Amino acid sequence: MKPVNVGICGLGTVGTGTFNVLQRNLKDIARRAGRSVQITHVGARRKPDVNLAGITHSTDIFAVAKDPNVHILVELIGGTTVAKDLVLMAIEHGKGVVTANKALIALHGNEIFAAAEAKGVVVAYEAGVAGGIPIIKAIREGLVANKITSVAGIINGTTNFILTEMSEKGRDFDDVLAEAQALGYAEADPTFDVEGIDAAHKLSILAANAFGIALQFDKVFTEGITEITTEDVQYASELGYRVKHLGIARRTESGVEMRVHPTLIPEKRLIANVDGVLNAVLVQGDAVGPTMYYGAGAGAEATASSVIADIVDMARDIDSPGLVPHLGFSIETEDLPVLSAEEMTTSYYLRISVKDEVGQMAKIAQTLSDHGINMEAIIQKEGPESETLVPLIILTQPVKERAMNLAIGALEALPSIPNKIVRIRTERLDG
Amino acid sequence: MKPVNVGICGLGTVGTGTFNVLQRNLKDIARRAGRSVQITHVGARRKPDVNLAGITHSTDIFAVAKDPNVHILVELIGGTTVAKDLVLMAIEHGKGVVTANKALIALHGNEIFAAAEAKGVVVAYEAGVAGGIPIIKAIREGLVANKITSVAGIINGTTNFILTEMSEKGRDFDDVLAEAQALGYAEADPTFDVEGIDAAHKLSILAANAFGIALQFDKVFTEGITEITTEDVQYASELGYRVKHLGIARRTESGVEMRVHPTLIPEKRLIANVDGVLNAVLVQGDAVGPTMYYGAGAGAEATASSVIADIVDMARDIDSPGLVPHLGFSIETEDLPVLSAEEMTTSYYLRISVKDEVGQMAKIAQTLSDHGINMEAIIQKEGPESETLVPLIILTQPVKERAMNLAIGALEALPSIPNKIVRIRTERLDG
Repeated sequence: MKPVNVGICGLGTVGTGTFNVLQRNLKDIARRAGRSVQITHVGARRKPDVNLAGITHSTDIFAVAKDPNVHILVELIGGTTVAKDLVLMAIEHGKGVVTANKALIALHGNEIFAAAEAKGVVVAYEAGVAGGIPIIKAIREGLVANKITSVAGIINGTTNFILTEMSEKGRDFDDVLAEAQALGYAEADPTFDVEGIDAAHKLSILAANAFGIALQFDKVFTEGITEITTEDVQYASELGYRVKHLGIARRTESGVEMRVHPTLIPEKRLIANVDGVLNAVLVQGDAVGPTMYYGAGAGAEATASSVIADIVDMARDIDSPGLVPHLGFSIETEDLPVLSAEEMTTSYYLRISVKDEVGQMAKIAQTLSDHGINMEAIIQKEGPESETLVPLIILTQPVKERAMNLAIGALEALPSIPNKIVRIRTERLDG
Repeated sequence: MKPVNVGICGLGTVGTGTFNVLQRNLKDIARRAGRSVQITHVGARRKPDVNLAGITHSTDIFAVAKDPNVHILVELIGGTTVAKDLVLMAIEHGKGVVTANKALIALHGNEIFAAAEAKGVVVAYEAGVAGGIPIIKAIREGLVANKITSVAGIINGTTNFILTEMSEKGRDFDDVLAEAQALGYAEADPTFDVEGIDAAHKLSILAANAFGIALQFDKVFTEGITEITTEDVQYASELGYRVKHLGIARRTESGVEMRVHPTLIPEKRLIANVDGVLNAVLVQGDAVGPTMYYGAGAGAEATASSVIADIVDMARDIDSPGLVPHLGFSIETEDLPVLSAEEMTTSYYLRISVKDEVGQMAKIAQTLSDHGINMEAIIQKEGPESETLVPLIILTQPVKERAMNLAIGALEALPSIPNKIVRIRTERLDG
């Protein structure tokens, strides 16, 4: 199929991230989209710091909206005035639009979508809510069978970072806010984040998709985190709760609740343990029950991930119904070798029942070392097993299974280790 | 647009769940799909216990595959022999196929997909992996921009239930397995679950979609949980780890690892805290970083949720490119009232600085009670504030915000409460 031509307007953080990810994963994206996705035009006031070979650069972003070769316009300039004009012009010219601009959608989405529907084009905004988490897709496609009864999310990373630091380190709001600003997690003027406006934009978008109502940002009850004190975070913790800044939309018998505010959540809940700048959205459906979606809510490439997902959805549907390939990738599958168990690498938990004699520990450590296995932790327990055998628990660093098999064979050959050694693999699983 | 006609083969647990959810949420599903989705034919050996008004019933399931009025055949009979013949016949007759059958896809998917591609139809299997969690969609659509580096999931609810009980209550494997069987979480012959075969089926499907490789179930390294002892779960816990049965697929420089085995995970990780029969899948992408997807991995209606999502995806694409409506629902948005803050209901955390005098607690309790507010917990702290004021922390049961506003007004009018009362909303957030 013919390539899809993408025009990107705005090459700030997210624009550059989108540019870079699209270029870096060009081949895989084409295999998944069933056609290649190429950037043909960028609109940015200044010449951007990316390789523009073969790409038109316009200082006037509206030139991208008028470019007859561009199929999809990506709006990443932010704001709600020029961005709105740009998006409406792109629609007028029959282009699909992808945006990460939650304020634009929350405030002008009803008007923009009406214009898009009149022209038969699509405006997509997955990146506008919870960054890289495909939550819009989950709600309106993955959970399409459900009557959704509630959505509750940590949908602003800045406030979650601040509350996490206050909770874990007993720090003050002002102190953490200053650090968040230094780290680039918070703007110089943090009002949109700490007063909950950004979360309210996102919540109104989630609620519309969950309940089939219009966008109604002005009806979201909104309270920020500026009045949360370390003292209250501490008392909440004593009662078994964590304080999180949540956006909550709920369908009740009398109507829909939309609210953004600091919230105590029982600490046992998974979402209560989503910390730092990360986001998570908990959705309740009548058929599926609770489901939760977790990941980066901001950042150049995480947001780009959702921008590109929208581009590919659109690219699949240009000309003909867009089929998602049966195993995710079209054309032939890749012939990556699958490793045998012996070639796999993991850490290990070992439980060794060893005779309670002098020098055994050293002998075991030496045997492991001889096989290139480093220990990370070791505990010796009083033995429940018998009077002469004591359990020795070892955590190792990552090692090939082959080496571990040999080491265990050597250990089990020792007269001081009469029983089979128990091994369970161990994974750090960052994130 | 014309309705889409669905034929369901197999009306066991998941079949009946699919039937019920499709009928119950008929109207909303039509608003989301842009056309109505109707069951026109069911294939089941015996007359099923559902209302078949207007629906053809065949005792021969192959009659559904041959029915020229059926657009989409839903295969829910299970097994890999008759089910395979049925799916291939449906493809041969040009129908889209939806299945929840992971064994069928893991073992015969390569052949089935080749047949489907030759006929230009789609075979969808979201329900086959992690039940109601839209993980296949997330990987191949939501994360389409990413080079996926690893997938790690709790993808078998039975083993997770057993390990959770062993960990939390110190129970033995055999004991918990017997309970799981009594509860219907485990089959009479639990081999597929406890030996990891079911998880290996699912992992091979996840790996193919994540990495663009063919289905290779036979190359999955598979180890069950039958040899995990309470003792090891306990030692792991002392070291700060939880034991989970994971399916792990990882892209390494030398090839792809696919393995299913019990795994120690640091207890701080979100996925280490996914308990009971629930499932969760952690995906690492080069752009988005870690994302996680959590929810019910089994059950009639949770699985039906994914079956219907696949049906709607297909229904959208029949005849013309299927546009997902801008706000999830097509036709007009619904005019549900949005509640004002005063009408919203939540629980509250209150911090009241009260003069340290006899009878104040009773007065506060009375004032709350007068406004219909019940207390759930109350703690009185030694005051850091001043010598005469002590903080009183109260958790309330759910109440309308209006009542709380009035109660707080009344409390703040008391001479013993000179300062503003702090209130933070509280949500239980089941799930």
